[in-house]
Amino acid sequence: MVARVSDPTGLHRVLDDTVVLPQAARRLDTRAELWPDEVRIRVERLNLDAASYRQLERKHGGDGSVDYDAIRAEVLDIVAGRGKMQNPETGSGGMLVGTVEEVGPDSPLGLRAGDRVATLVSLTLTPLVIEDGLAAWDGRGEQVPCDGYAVLFGRSIAAVLPDDLPTELSLSVMDVCGAPALTARVVGEYVARSSHGVTVAVVGGGGKSGSLSLAAARHAGASRTIGVVPHEREAALLRAAGLADEVVVADARNPIGLRDAVAAAGGPADVTVVCVDVPGCEGGAILATADRGTVVFFSMATSFAAAALGAEGLASDVTMLVGNGYVPGHAAYALELLREDAGVRSLFEGRLTHEAGR
Amino acid sequence: MVARVSDPTGLHRVLDDTVVLPQAARRLDTRAELWPDEVRIRVERLNLDAASYRQLERKHGGDGSVDYDAIRAEVLDIVAGRGKMQNPETGSGGMLVGTVEEVGPDSPLGLRAGDRVATLVSLTLTPLVIEDGLAAWDGRGEQVPCDGYAVLFGRSIAAVLPDDLPTELSLSVMDVCGAPALTARVVGEYVARSSHGVTVAVVGGGGKSGSLSLAAARHAGASRTIGVVPHEREAALLRAAGLADEVVVADARNPIGLRDAVAAAGGPADVTVVCVDVPGCEGGAILATADRGTVVFFSMATSFAAAALGAEGLASDVTMLVGNGYVPGHAAYALELLREDAGVRSLFEGRLTHEAGR
Repeated sequence: MVARVSDPTGLHRVLDDTVVLPQAARRLDTRAELWPDEVRIRVERLNLDAASYRQLERKHGGDGSVDYDAIRAEVLDIVAGRGKMQNPETGSGGMLVGTVEEVGPDSPLGLRAGDRVATLVSLTLTPLVIEDGLAAWDGRGEQVPCDGYAVLFGRSIAAVLPDDLPTELSLSVMDVCGAPALTARVVGEYVARSSHGVTVAVVGGGGKSGSLSLAAARHAGASRTIGVVPHEREAALLRAAGLADEVVVADARNPIGLRDAVAAAGGPADVTVVCVDVPGCEGGAILATADRGTVVFFSMATSFAAAALGAEGLASDVTMLVGNGYVPGHAAYALELLREDAGVRSLFEGRLTHEAGR
Repeated sequence: MVARVSDPTGLHRVLDDTVVLPQAARRLDTRAELWPDEVRIRVERLNLDAASYRQLERKHGGDGSVDYDAIRAEVLDIVAGRGKMQNPETGSGGMLVGTVEEVGPDSPLGLRAGDRVATLVSLTLTPLVIEDGLAAWDGRGEQVPCDGYAVLFGRSIAAVLPDDLPTELSLSVMDVCGAPALTARVVGEYVARSSHGVTVAVVGGGGKSGSLSLAAARHAGASRTIGVVPHEREAALLRAAGLADEVVVADARNPIGLRDAVAAAGGPADVTVVCVDVPGCEGGAILATADRGTVVFFSMATSFAAAALGAEGLASDVTMLVGNGYVPGHAAYALELLREDAGVRSLFEGRLTHEAGR
């Protein structure tokens, strides 16, 4: 064994020649033996990132048929070669569900052996060993039954799955739990110093992170919430869920259209939350936001340069936040919103039913 | 004349078929006649964006020689065709210097005819007509003497050039004036609620935006400032300028190295400001920052995804700001820092001398 002390980032398990963090590493050390601040999980299922699975499907498809055995073989190859599930094309990973097997004496994560957990850090930085050759997976879909083990570091995050909710529902919420937690924090700061009410617009308010962010904004004290959706069908769903005071239909890529739609619904917004995963929404989000307001970008399609140059070009004094997916307590908070808000729950359950029926 | 009312964003001058903001437009309306909220500037010089000029130089170069007449012809072509100076390859523009010629009755910019100004919004969204065929420019370098006119919109920004400083020095400061203004605001917020002093690290502290940000942090009440530079030569210059309490040498692309260097200098930082224009600094900046601290990204090389996923992967509860280049009063504030701080002034003057000598 290498006589290295552990680093909370997992640096001690990086096998590359240069010093990089586990996410950037080509290969991780997957030994089962734990450093004192680590936790080992017995894996029951991997949830592959959707973009990663689609890439594998395209690669091994053609003529209308897909070679699912080849997909399974490639996932096994990647994990065996890299010590982690990180699609080399998309760079993305996913998450996993399992049961805590062993907890190092210095682990700060608060887990106990036997806890059933989901990891909320990416598979792209999680040491992983598959022990069953993925025999129970037919290669179809992002849900991968799996026997094996994974390792969490001192700074990892894992959430205990609640007993009172179906696993699928909990995972679906946990997948986007950073957005409502950060929305609540930002909106709460505005509420604390405002004397005239706080308006919040959520662009993509009908989606998973968007609907939770609308619920979080109201929970944090927003006096008016505006959900922006791309078409009338989604507007009807969001209106039925009752999550927003106003629901408006607008193309978020049209800056003037978005600005005017939010203004007509009672804007500009003190806080604008961007949850819609299409490029080109930066200008509209900036224009929909009041002077000294805040834009929170949760969309991974956000362009840093478009946001920075866009605000400058519009002489717009807005604060722009990179949506950090980690806020302490985020999973518990999002699950609480789901439990307390029938509208949120109905949207999430409807989505799962719809997906199961595909 | 088209019977359209003006929009403060300049939308009324976009000639494209789809609704886009002037920066995204293919072509702008350059008529000299003003809408009521506009201002017309008599141009004396264009400052081309450095990346744009380098691209033109590469395109028209080869075998060690550059066809400077071709560079001039292409700039004329671009401006004639698009109604603005936006390099179609790099997407970037630059800024201009000129004198206010006419002010529309509803202009909110506070300018008067005769004011000598620099525009602080990009040339990529500024209607521009060149009237002298760039006869006074030999095609060499980013400074382009030019006779012609440009138009500012209701939401544009222009700063009056001060009488007490050389134009070159003022422009050099105004070029990066967003960074110190936002740094001062963020640091000031920490100082207002902290009882134990505020530590600020500036990555790339020896550069233009970095040195001004160090001065701004101290001015805003930081109790300890740390300048991070890439090599010993720059460390010596920054130490001599006296702008930082600690100067450390570290490669900002090495996350562990940056974290440990800032920690050794008295970190982690409450506020980390990233001013170094190389990719891959997100992880180190996050790790150099304390829990509940803030990272301000001013580098245009910042990757939104690397920042968002990096913080989540490290379970790091930091606030991450997209460095907005516009804060009201930013130009005046940066010039004030230059006037009051001999260290800042010496660094800027040294840089201009060095560039003039190239």
